Amino acid sequence: MPDSSRQQRRREQTRARLIAAAKNLVAVHGVDGVGLSEITEAADLGAGTFYNYFRSRDDIVEAVVEESIESVGARLDKLTASLSDPAEVFSFSLRHLVRQAVTDPVWGWFVVRLGVAHPKLLAILGPRCARDLRQGVDSGRFTIPDIELATACVFGALLSTLRYTLSRESAAHVEETFAQTMLGMVGVPADEAWDVASRELPDLPGAE
Amino acid sequence: MPDSSRQQRRREQTRARLIAAAKNLVAVHGVDGVGLSEITEAADLGAGTFYNYFRSRDDIVEAVVEESIESVGARLDKLTASLSDPAEVFSFSLRHLVRQAVTDPVWGWFVVRLGVAHPKLLAILGPRCARDLRQGVDSGRFTIPDIELATACVFGALLSTLRYTLSRESAAHVEETFAQTMLGMVGVPADEAWDVASRELPDLPGAE
Repeated sequence: MPDSSRQQRRREQTRARLIAAAKNLVAVHGVDGVGLSEITEAADLGAGTFYNYFRSRDDIVEAVVEESIESVGARLDKLTASLSDPAEVFSFSLRHLVRQAVTDPVWGWFVVRLGVAHPKLLAILGPRCARDLRQGVDSGRFTIPDIELATACVFGALLSTLRYTLSRESAAHVEETFAQTMLGMVGVPADEAWDVASRELPDLPGAE
Repeated sequence: MPDSSRQQRRREQTRARLIAAAKNLVAVHGVDGVGLSEITEAADLGAGTFYNYFRSRDDIVEAVVEESIESVGARLDKLTASLSDPAEVFSFSLRHLVRQAVTDPVWGWFVVRLGVAHPKLLAILGPRCARDLRQGVDSGRFTIPDIELATACVFGALLSTLRYTLSRESAAHVEETFAQTMLGMVGVPADEAWDVASRELPDLPGAE
Protein backbone atom coordinates (compact mmCIF):
# COMPACT_ATOMS: atom_id res chain seq x y z
CA MET A 1 0.00 0.00 0.00
CA PRO A 2 1.79 3.14 -1.22
CA ASP A 3 0.16 5.43 1.35
CA SER A 4 1.25 3.44 4.34
CA SER A 5 4.73 2.85 2.96
CA ARG A 6 5.12 6.57 2.29
CA GLN A 7 4.00 7.20 5.87
CA GLN A 8 6.48 4.62 7.10
CA ARG A 9 9.27 6.24 5.11
CA ARG A 10 8.41 9.66 6.49
CA ARG A 11 8.39 8.22 9.99
CA GLU A 12 11.85 6.80 9.48
CA GLN A 13 13.13 10.12 8.13
CA THR A 14 11.77 12.01 11.13
CA ARG A 15 13.33 9.52 13.51
CA ALA A 16 16.66 9.78 11.67
CA ARG A 17 16.55 13.57 11.93
CA LEU A 18 16.04 13.36 15.69
CA ILE A 19 18.85 10.81 16.02
CA ALA A 20 21.26 12.94 13.96
CA ALA A 21 20.38 16.07 15.95
CA ALA A 22 20.93 14.30 19.27
CA LYS A 23 24.25 12.83 18.10
CA ASN A 24 25.55 16.22 16.91
CA LEU A 25 24.50 17.99 20.10
CA VAL A 26 25.97 15.36 22.44
CA ALA A 27 29.21 15.45 20.42
CA VAL A 28 29.53 19.15 21.26
CA HIS A 29 27.93 19.52 24.70
CA GLY A 30 27.98 16.09 26.30
CA VAL A 31 24.85 14.16 27.33
CA ASP A 32 24.06 16.28 30.37
CA GLY A 33 24.40 19.49 28.40
CA VAL A 34 21.63 18.60 25.96
CA GLY A 35 17.92 19.01 26.58
CA LEU A 36 14.89 17.83 24.62
CA SER A 37 14.09 21.32 23.35
CA GLU A 38 17.55 21.67 21.80
CA ILE A 39 17.16 18.33 20.05
CA THR A 40 13.75 19.14 18.56
CA GLU A 41 14.91 22.62 17.61
CA ALA A 42 18.03 21.30 15.86
CA ALA A 43 15.87 18.72 14.06
CA ASP A 44 13.41 21.48 13.20
CA LEU A 45 10.50 19.54 14.64
CA GLY A 46 7.78 20.39 17.12
CA ALA A 47 8.36 19.44 20.75
CA GLY A 48 5.36 17.09 20.70
CA THR A 49 6.73 15.06 17.79
CA PHE A 50 9.65 13.88 19.92
CA TYR A 51 7.42 11.74 22.12
CA ASN A 52 6.08 9.82 19.14
CA TYR A 53 9.58 8.38 18.81
CA PHE A 54 11.36 8.47 22.16
CA ARG A 55 10.39 8.56 25.81
CA SER A 56 13.14 10.88 27.09
CA ARG A 57 16.52 12.47 26.49
CA ASP A 58 18.26 9.38 27.89
CA ASP A 59 16.11 7.18 25.65
CA ILE A 60 17.20 8.92 22.43
CA VAL A 61 20.85 8.97 23.56
CA GLU A 62 20.63 5.22 24.13
CA ALA A 63 19.24 4.87 20.61
CA VAL A 64 22.15 6.90 19.19
CA VAL A 65 24.65 4.72 21.06
CA GLU A 66 22.84 1.58 19.93
CA GLU A 67 22.83 2.63 16.27
CA SER A 68 26.23 4.25 15.96
CA ILE A 69 28.36 2.07 18.24
CA GLU A 70 26.65 -1.31 17.94
CA SER A 71 26.86 -1.11 14.14
CA VAL A 72 30.64 -0.57 14.27
CA GLY A 73 30.92 -3.38 16.84
CA ALA A 74 29.00 -5.77 14.57
CA ARG A 75 31.20 -4.90 11.58
CA LEU A 76 34.32 -5.47 13.70
CA ASP A 77 32.95 -8.86 14.74
CA LYS A 78 32.51 -9.74 11.07
CA LEU A 79 36.03 -8.58 10.18
CA THR A 80 37.76 -10.43 13.00
CA ALA A 81 35.69 -13.66 13.00
CA SER A 82 38.00 -15.34 10.50
CA LEU A 83 41.29 -14.23 12.10
CA SER A 84 43.26 -16.73 14.13
CA ASP A 85 45.74 -14.51 16.01
CA PRO A 86 44.05 -12.89 19.06
CA ALA A 87 46.69 -10.13 19.02
CA GLU A 88 45.66 -9.26 15.46
CA VAL A 89 41.96 -9.32 16.38
CA PHE A 90 42.57 -6.94 19.28
CA SER A 91 44.86 -4.66 17.28
CA PHE A 92 42.61 -4.43 14.21
CA SER A 93 39.57 -3.61 16.36
CA LEU A 94 41.35 -0.82 18.24
CA ARG A 95 42.78 0.63 15.04
CA HIS A 96 39.40 0.66 13.33
CA LEU A 97 37.84 2.44 16.31
CA VAL A 98 40.51 5.15 16.13
CA ARG A 99 40.12 5.38 12.35
CA GLN A 100 36.35 5.65 12.66
CA ALA A 101 36.75 8.67 14.96
CA VAL A 102 39.21 10.35 12.59
CA THR A 103 36.98 9.67 9.57
CA ASP A 104 33.81 10.77 11.35
CA PRO A 105 34.69 13.33 14.05
CA VAL A 106 31.04 13.69 15.12
CA TRP A 107 31.06 9.98 15.92
CA GLY A 108 34.41 10.43 17.68
CA TRP A 109 33.37 13.40 19.82
CA PHE A 110 30.06 11.68 20.58
CA VAL A 111 31.99 8.76 22.07
CA VAL A 112 34.47 11.03 23.89
CA ARG A 113 31.78 13.25 25.40
CA LEU A 114 29.66 10.25 26.35
CA GLY A 115 32.68 9.38 28.42
CA VAL A 116 33.85 6.57 30.66
CA ALA A 117 30.78 6.91 32.88
CA HIS A 118 28.13 6.04 30.28
CA PRO A 119 26.87 2.50 30.95
CA LYS A 120 25.52 1.83 27.44
CA LEU A 121 28.83 2.54 25.70
CA LEU A 122 30.65 0.13 28.01
CA ALA A 123 27.82 -2.40 27.64
CA ILE A 124 28.42 -2.53 23.87
CA LEU A 125 32.22 -2.32 23.70
CA GLY A 126 33.15 -3.95 27.03
CA PRO A 127 31.98 -7.54 26.39
CA ARG A 128 33.61 -7.57 22.94
CA CYS A 129 36.89 -6.37 24.43
CA ALA A 130 36.71 -8.89 27.29
CA ARG A 131 36.03 -11.68 24.77
CA ASP A 132 39.08 -10.72 22.68
CA LEU A 133 41.29 -10.45 25.76
CA ARG A 134 40.11 -13.85 27.03
CA GLN A 135 40.97 -15.46 23.67
CA GLY A 136 44.43 -13.96 23.94
CA VAL A 137 44.91 -15.31 27.44
CA ASP A 138 43.54 -18.77 26.53
CA SER A 139 45.91 -19.04 23.59
CA GLY A 140 48.86 -17.96 25.74
CA ARG A 141 49.40 -14.84 23.63
CA PHE A 142 48.35 -12.37 26.36
CA THR A 143 49.30 -12.14 30.05
CA ILE A 144 46.63 -10.23 31.98
CA PRO A 145 46.28 -10.06 35.78
CA ASP A 146 42.53 -9.27 35.66
CA ILE A 147 40.51 -9.32 32.41
CA GLU A 148 37.64 -7.21 33.74
CA LEU A 149 39.98 -4.49 34.97
CA ALA A 150 42.04 -4.68 31.77
CA THR A 151 38.80 -4.17 29.80
CA ALA A 152 38.09 -1.04 31.85
CA CYS A 153 41.63 0.18 31.13
CA VAL A 154 41.35 -0.45 27.37
CA PHE A 155 37.98 1.32 27.32
CA GLY A 156 39.31 4.41 29.13
CA ALA A 157 42.53 4.44 27.13
CA LEU A 158 40.51 4.27 23.90
CA LEU A 159 38.29 7.23 24.82
CA SER A 160 41.28 9.28 25.95
CA THR A 161 43.17 8.39 22.76
CA LEU A 162 40.19 9.44 20.64
CA ARG A 163 40.12 12.80 22.41
CA TYR A 164 43.89 13.12 21.95
CA THR A 165 43.58 12.32 18.26
CA LEU A 166 40.60 14.58 17.61
CA SER A 167 42.32 17.51 19.32
CA ARG A 168 45.38 17.37 17.08
CA GLU A 169 46.11 18.63 13.60
CA SER A 170 47.78 15.44 12.56
CA ALA A 171 46.95 11.98 13.80
CA ALA A 172 49.61 10.13 11.83
CA HIS A 173 50.47 6.74 13.32
CA VAL A 174 48.20 7.18 16.35
CA GLU A 175 46.25 4.12 15.18
CA GLU A 176 49.30 1.85 15.15
CA THR A 177 50.97 3.35 18.21
CA PHE A 178 47.79 3.01 20.25
CA ALA A 179 47.39 -0.64 19.22
CA GLN A 180 51.06 -1.24 20.04
CA THR A 181 50.63 0.37 23.49
CA MET A 182 47.56 -1.73 24.26
CA LEU A 183 49.27 -4.93 23.06
CA GLY A 184 52.09 -4.06 25.45
CA MET A 185 49.54 -3.65 28.22
CA VAL A 186 48.22 -7.16 27.70
CA GLY A 187 51.72 -8.61 27.84
CA VAL A 188 52.82 -8.88 24.22
CA PRO A 189 56.60 -8.17 24.05
CA ALA A 190 57.54 -4.81 22.46
CA ASP A 191 58.95 -6.12 19.15
CA GLU A 192 56.02 -8.49 18.57
CA ALA A 193 53.57 -5.73 19.55
CA TRP A 194 55.01 -3.45 16.88
CA ASP A 195 54.98 -6.23 14.31
CA VAL A 196 51.29 -6.95 14.94
CA ALA A 197 50.24 -3.29 15.27
CA SER A 198 51.85 -2.25 11.98
CA ARG A 199 50.30 -4.97 9.80
CA GLU A 200 48.15 -3.81 6.92
CA LEU A 201 44.68 -3.07 8.23
CA PRO A 202 41.90 -4.69 6.18
CA ASP A 203 38.85 -2.53 5.46
CA LEU A 204 35.85 -2.84 7.69
CA PRO A 205 33.09 -4.81 5.94
CA GLY A 206 29.90 -2.86 5.19
CA ALA A 207 26.91 -2.83 7.50
CA GLU A 208 24.28 -5.50 6.92
CA MET B 1 41.82 44.39 62.77
CA PRO B 2 39.33 41.79 64.03
CA ASP B 3 36.46 43.09 61.86
CA SER B 4 38.32 42.67 58.61
CA SER B 5 39.70 39.26 59.61
CA ARG B 6 36.19 38.12 60.55
CA GLN B 7 34.99 39.37 57.18
CA GLN B 8 37.85 37.56 55.49
CA ARG B 9 36.97 34.35 57.33
CA ARG B 10 33.34 34.64 56.35
CA ARG B 11 34.37 35.22 52.77
CA GLU B 12 36.46 32.07 52.80
CA GLN B 13 33.60 30.08 54.30
CA THR B 14 31.18 31.28 51.64
CA ARG B 15 33.65 30.44 48.90
CA ALA B 16 34.20 26.98 50.41
CA ARG B 17 30.43 26.39 50.48
CA LEU B 18 30.18 27.22 46.78
CA ILE B 19 33.16 25.01 45.97
CA ALA B 20 31.73 22.08 47.95
CA ALA B 21 28.31 22.48 46.33
CA ALA B 22 29.81 22.56 42.83
CA LYS B 23 31.96 19.51 43.53
CA ASN B 24 29.02 17.49 44.87
CA LEU B 25 26.77 18.43 41.96
CA VAL B 26 29.37 17.70 39.27
CA ALA B 27 30.08 14.36 40.96
CA VAL B 28 26.43 13.39 40.41
CA HIS B 29 25.43 15.17 37.19
CA GLY B 30 28.65 15.93 35.30
CA VAL B 31 29.84 19.45 34.44
CA ASP B 32 27.32 20.05 31.70
CA GLY B 33 24.45 18.91 33.87
CA VAL B 34 25.04 21.60 36.49
CA GLY B 35 23.89 25.20 36.27
CA LEU B 36 24.68 28.22 38.43
CA SER B 37 21.24 28.22 40.05
CA GLU B 38 21.70 24.65 41.27
CA ILE B 39 25.08 25.53 42.78
CA THR B 40 23.81 28.57 44.66
CA GLU B 41 20.71 26.68 45.76
CA ALA B 42 22.78 23.75 47.09
CA ALA B 43 25.09 26.21 48.87
CA ASP B 44 21.99 28.02 50.21
CA LEU B 45 23.21 31.35 48.89
CA GLY B 46 21.61 34.05 46.76
CA ALA B 47 22.29 34.00 43.03
CA GLY B 48 24.02 37.37 43.22
CA THR B 49 26.57 36.16 45.79
CA PHE B 50 28.05 33.72 43.29
CA TYR B 51 29.48 36.50 41.13
CA ASN B 52 31.44 37.92 44.06
CA TYR B 53 33.51 34.77 43.92
CA PHE B 54 33.42 33.28 40.43
CA ARG B 55 32.78 34.50 36.91
CA SER B 56 30.91 31.49 35.57
CA ARG B 57 30.04 27.83 35.96
CA ASP B 58 33.23 26.85 34.15
CA ASP B 59 35.23 29.18 36.39
CA ILE B 60 34.04 27.51 39.61
CA VAL B 61 34.55 24.02 38.15
CA GLU B 62 38.14 25.02 37.30
CA ALA B 63 38.57 26.15 40.88
CA VAL B 64 37.27 22.80 42.17
CA VAL B 65 39.68 20.95 39.88
CA GLU B 66 42.53 23.22 40.92
CA GLU B 67 41.87 22.73 44.63
CA SER B 68 40.94 19.08 44.75
CA ILE B 69 43.24 17.60 42.09
CA GLU B 70 46.27 19.90 42.27
CA SER B 71 46.49 19.34 46.04
CA VAL B 72 46.64 15.56 45.55
CA GLY B 73 49.18 16.04 42.75
CA ALA B 74 51.40 18.18 44.99
CA ARG B 75 51.25 15.61 47.80
CA LEU B 76 52.16 12.85 45.34
CA ASP B 77 55.13 14.93 44.16
CA LYS B 78 56.29 15.22 47.77
CA LEU B 79 55.90 11.48 48.38
CA THR B 80 57.74 10.39 45.26
CA ALA B 81 60.51 13.04 45.20
CA SER B 82 62.83 10.89 47.31
CA LEU B 83 62.19 7.61 45.47
CA SER B 84 64.80 6.34 43.04
CA ASP B 85 62.89 3.64 41.11
CA PRO B 86 60.68 5.23 38.39
CA ALA B 87 58.48 2.13 38.41
CA GLU B 88 57.80 2.66 42.11
CA VAL B 89 57.08 6.37 41.57
CA PHE B 90 54.57 5.55 38.83
CA SER B 91 52.97 2.69 40.77
CA PHE B 92 52.65 4.60 44.07
CA SER B 93 51.07 7.58 42.32
CA LEU B 94 48.48 5.47 40.51
CA ARG B 95 47.65 3.51 43.66
CA HIS B 96 47.16 6.67 45.71
CA LEU B 97 44.84 8.09 43.06
CA VAL B 98 42.69 4.94 43.19
CA ARG B 99 42.80 4.96 47.00
CA GLN B 100 41.80 8.63 47.10
CA ALA B 101 38.68 7.84 45.04
CA VAL B 102 37.74 4.91 47.27
CA THR B 103 38.30 6.96 50.45
CA ASP B 104 36.45 10.01 49.10
CA PRO B 105 33.83 8.88 46.55
CA VAL B 106 32.68 12.46 45.89
CA TRP B 107 36.24 13.24 44.78
CA GLY B 108 36.25 10.04 42.74
CA TRP B 109 32.94 10.65 40.96
CA PHE B 110 33.91 14.27 40.39
CA VAL B 111 36.98 13.07 38.47
CA VAL B 112 35.03 10.37 36.61
CA ARG B 113 32.21 12.70 35.58
CA LEU B 114 34.65 15.43 34.60
CA GLY B 115 35.83 12.80 32.16
CA VAL B 116 38.56 12.41 29.58
CA ALA B 117 37.44 15.53 27.73
CA HIS B 118 38.09 18.08 30.49
CA PRO B 119 41.25 20.05 29.66
CA LYS B 120 42.02 21.20 33.23
CA LEU B 121 42.10 17.69 34.67
CA LEU B 122 44.54 16.56 32.01
CA ALA B 123 46.54 19.78 32.44
CA ILE B 124 47.18 18.91 36.10
CA LEU B 125 47.68 15.15 35.90
CA GLY B 126 49.11 14.85 32.38
CA PRO B 127 52.48 16.62 32.82
CA ARG B 128 53.16 14.74 36.07
CA CYS B 129 52.42 11.42 34.37
CA ALA B 130 54.57 12.33 31.33
CA ARG B 131 57.44 13.33 33.66
CA ASP B 132 57.26 9.99 35.51
CA LEU B 133 57.09 8.03 32.25
CA ARG B 134 60.08 9.94 30.83
CA GLN B 135 62.14 9.13 33.92
CA GLY B 136 61.29 5.49 33.44
CA VAL B 137 62.34 5.57 29.79
CA ASP B 138 65.55 7.51 30.54
CA SER B 139 66.55 4.99 33.20
CA GLY B 140 65.83 2.08 30.87
CA ARG B 141 63.08 0.77 33.17
CA PHE B 142 60.20 1.55 30.75
CA THR B 143 59.79 0.89 27.04
CA ILE B 144 57.22 3.29 25.55
CA PRO B 145 56.62 3.93 21.84
CA ASP B 146 55.16 7.42 22.42
CA ILE B 147 55.16 9.14 25.83
CA GLU B 148 52.42 11.63 25.00
CA LEU B 149 50.07 8.93 23.76
CA ALA B 150 50.97 6.69 26.71
CA THR B 151 50.08 9.59 29.03
CA ALA B 152 46.68 9.85 27.34
CA CYS B 153 46.21 6.09 27.79
CA VAL B 154 47.16 6.17 31.50
CA PHE B 155 44.81 9.12 32.04
CA GLY B 156 41.86 7.37 30.37
CA ALA B 157 42.62 4.04 32.03
CA LEU B 158 42.75 5.78 35.42
CA LEU B 159 39.35 7.45 34.98
CA SER B 160 37.79 4.23 33.73
CA THR B 161 39.33 2.28 36.63
CA LEU B 162 37.98 4.81 39.13
CA ARG B 163 34.51 4.37 37.65
CA TYR B 164 34.92 0.58 37.75
CA THR B 165 36.05 0.74 41.37
CA LEU B 166 33.36 3.17 42.53
CA SER B 167 30.61 1.05 40.90
CA ARG B 168 31.56 -2.11 42.78
CA GLU B 169 30.82 -3.39 46.25
CA SER B 170 34.37 -4.47 46.86
CA ALA B 171 37.47 -2.88 45.41
CA ALA B 172 39.97 -5.27 46.95
CA HIS B 173 43.28 -5.33 45.09
CA VAL B 174 42.12 -2.94 42.36
CA GLU B 175 44.87 -0.54 43.45
CA GLU B 176 47.65 -3.07 42.98
CA THR B 177 46.17 -4.73 39.91
CA PHE B 178 45.70 -1.39 38.19
CA ALA B 179 49.31 -0.39 38.94
CA GLN B 180 50.49 -3.80 37.69
CA THR B 181 48.47 -3.40 34.47
CA MET B 182 49.88 0.10 33.82
CA LEU B 183 53.44 -1.07 34.56
CA GLY B 184 52.89 -3.79 31.99
CA MET B 185 51.72 -1.15 29.53
CA VAL B 186 54.98 0.78 29.89
CA GLY B 187 57.00 -2.34 29.26
CA VAL B 188 57.85 -3.69 32.72
CA PRO B 189 57.87 -7.53 32.55
CA ALA B 190 54.93 -9.23 34.32
CA ASP B 191 56.80 -10.64 37.34
CA GLU B 192 58.62 -7.37 38.02
CA ALA B 193 55.39 -5.43 37.55
CA TRP B 194 53.70 -7.50 40.21
CA ASP B 195 56.67 -7.16 42.55
CA VAL B 196 56.63 -3.36 42.25
CA ALA B 197 52.84 -3.01 42.33
CA SER B 198 52.45 -5.06 45.51
CA ARG B 199 55.05 -3.21 47.61
CA GLU B 200 53.80 -1.58 50.79
CA LEU B 201 52.30 1.78 49.90
CA PRO B 202 53.59 4.64 52.09
CA ASP B 203 50.99 7.14 53.30
CA LEU B 204 50.51 10.34 51.36
CA PRO B 205 52.11 13.27 53.21
CA GLY B 206 49.67 15.96 54.47
CA ALA B 207 48.83 19.05 52.46
CA GLU B 208 51.03 22.12 53.02
